[in-house]
Amino acid sequence: MHRVYNFSAGPAVLPEEVLQEAAAEMLDYRGTGMSVMEMSHRSAAFEEIIQTAEADLRALMGIPDNYQVLFLQGGASQQFAAIPMNLMRHGVADYIVTGQWAKKAYQEAQKYGKAVKIASSEDETFSYIPDCSDLPIDEAADYVYICENNTIYGTKFHTLPNTKGKPLVADVSSCFLSEPMDVTKYAVIYGGVQKNIGPAGVVIAIIRDDMIPETPAVENTPTMLAWKTQADAHSLYNTPPCYGIYICGKVFQWIKKMGGLEAMQQRNIAKAKVLYDFLDESRLFKGTVRREDRSLMNVPFVTGDKALDAKFVKEAAAAGFVNLKGHRTVGGMRASIYNAMPIEGVEKLVEFMRKFEADNA
Amino acid sequence: MHRVYNFSAGPAVLPEEVLQEAAAEMLDYRGTGMSVMEMSHRSAAFEEIIQTAEADLRALMGIPDNYQVLFLQGGASQQFAAIPMNLMRHGVADYIVTGQWAKKAYQEAQKYGKAVKIASSEDETFSYIPDCSDLPIDEAADYVYICENNTIYGTKFHTLPNTKGKPLVADVSSCFLSEPMDVTKYAVIYGGVQKNIGPAGVVIAIIRDDMIPETPAVENTPTMLAWKTQADAHSLYNTPPCYGIYICGKVFQWIKKMGGLEAMQQRNIAKAKVLYDFLDESRLFKGTVRREDRSLMNVPFVTGDKALDAKFVKEAAAAGFVNLKGHRTVGGMRASIYNAMPIEGVEKLVEFMRKFEADNA
Repeated sequence: MHRVYNFSAGPAVLPEEVLQEAAAEMLDYRGTGMSVMEMSHRSAAFEEIIQTAEADLRALMGIPDNYQVLFLQGGASQQFAAIPMNLMRHGVADYIVTGQWAKKAYQEAQKYGKAVKIASSEDETFSYIPDCSDLPIDEAADYVYICENNTIYGTKFHTLPNTKGKPLVADVSSCFLSEPMDVTKYAVIYGGVQKNIGPAGVVIAIIRDDMIPETPAVENTPTMLAWKTQADAHSLYNTPPCYGIYICGKVFQWIKKMGGLEAMQQRNIAKAKVLYDFLDESRLFKGTVRREDRSLMNVPFVTGDKALDAKFVKEAAAAGFVNLKGHRTVGGMRASIYNAMPIEGVEKLVEFMRKFEADNA
Repeated sequence: MHRVYNFSAGPAVLPEEVLQEAAAEMLDYRGTGMSVMEMSHRSAAFEEIIQTAEADLRALMGIPDNYQVLFLQGGASQQFAAIPMNLMRHGVADYIVTGQWAKKAYQEAQKYGKAVKIASSEDETFSYIPDCSDLPIDEAADYVYICENNTIYGTKFHTLPNTKGKPLVADVSSCFLSEPMDVTKYAVIYGGVQKNIGPAGVVIAIIRDDMIPETPAVENTPTMLAWKTQADAHSLYNTPPCYGIYICGKVFQWIKKMGGLEAMQQRNIAKAKVLYDFLDESRLFKGTVRREDRSLMNVPFVTGDKALDAKFVKEAAAAGFVNLKGHRTVGGMRASIYNAMPIEGVEKLVEFMRKFEADNA
């Protein structure tokens, strides 16, 4: 068996032992005589899987009882509509636009009411997080929206915006479970799992009870987009993406075993430091993000020479460091170093970069 | 390794060799050094997976070039909204209500326009398919809707309704790929894959080009529910449920190897015959469906005595025949005998039923 160091921005690397367990259980999940893929979502075996996954996630993140945990489908992109459809009761919401995904969420919300862009970093290709300490929050705003970690650009909100009392809604797709977070500071936390938690096709939403309306704010919201539908049914209104939820559950167990979110954070800080320290001293490679806004998960960098960037990406792939090409809107390179990337992967990448620098600078 | 005979209505049994291949490829898909779960949906390896899956499905079903094949999320339940949102241009649609799922689709459509129930079999617990040769199709109807195989009740449309020229939209979740079908008779064919094709979390929709509007019929349709979004992006507008699509692709290959849909149909007829022939001669067990409307996939039956039904389900499970309990709205038993159920499974079940009859009748 051959394994590479996979720096994909998502879907992304998963813990090897999770994959090994999944392979071993593929034809017979713990004596049930069937795969989890073949299991009724109403069966006792699957109910245990989804309930254990939820309980483990609650324990890991310290999710209070007045928040629902929902396993949904359709990706973050579907929540871009579901959020205003559920919440825009007064027809107004404030968006902080720090990247392509926040921008898409903002654009989708405009369909359903007055979505206001109260801050943006688009002027410098989203390479920083704007000052959000005193923004012009609308008095009628139903919520304030952020994308907490910006996968494409490699920025992260290290301080949450001052929402002046308005509910905070955060897309955490690319920093989910990468460090402890105070759930009580948010009204809605959600994200696709395919970066830090599991296979594509599952969205986890953590929603405070008072943010789940009896009737969605927007008339004619599809039943499947009304959060109450899945909240009332404990995510089993219809058949959920069972196998994906099962893998997420295994990742939660792996994180618990590794020491929880505090340990994850230490590990992620150590990993990112190896790469950022090298970038800060390199004669060839340069980080593209304002230092204080750097993400622990996604690290974009460039040589300043497109041909050399391309050469690096190609030679790195040949050496077993794959998916290092940056997003087309930024160019250059990007190393996504999610929870499951071992520190050895980052150390060996930096070793390879040093050698490339010596050969090419 | 222990395997049972799994008669679940869905998620349901998958071909054992598909699961074996998936297990073998779990940590390293064909030399890529990663799992399909870890693979970027923009990678060459995944593009080959999804393109091969689509090409194989087109070949199996004989899908003409003027139909799009979309891999979607959210289950059939989400399409219950997407269908009227995309298609109800004149605000009218005709529904034939032959079960709970058709009824849910009909109810959801009422949000978006005038959904008309033009026929129903609810008067007899959906145990038959109404005569659909001359229904009062609305002149303004944008489409006529059916659920072609009714999982809960065990009925199937063996003759398609006369839609009097209106486009036919069919939910085929529980008969997908169970037999050849003439795609050109439909405007939209769609279904969740978790019964006959793959793991829950993928919907396949086969949509004639002229049924994919530039702009959805209903204002403010979420971007993710507008079919054009995924049609233009070849199902890669956002991250699709990659691993589920990969398993579907393996099932398509398995069906091809087994001889295609004609062979599947022969196999399914033979399997169903074993069970129906026994039900027709049994002193204890009785089928619940009008004979000419029987499904090849879902076979409900009863003893007429609830306590005896429960005893049967329990003893059958202990003997390795699992998930035989009928849906709560029908009671009794139901054997779902999808493509991947081997004939031995049905033969052994009938053998067990004979013995149970001898002991209890």
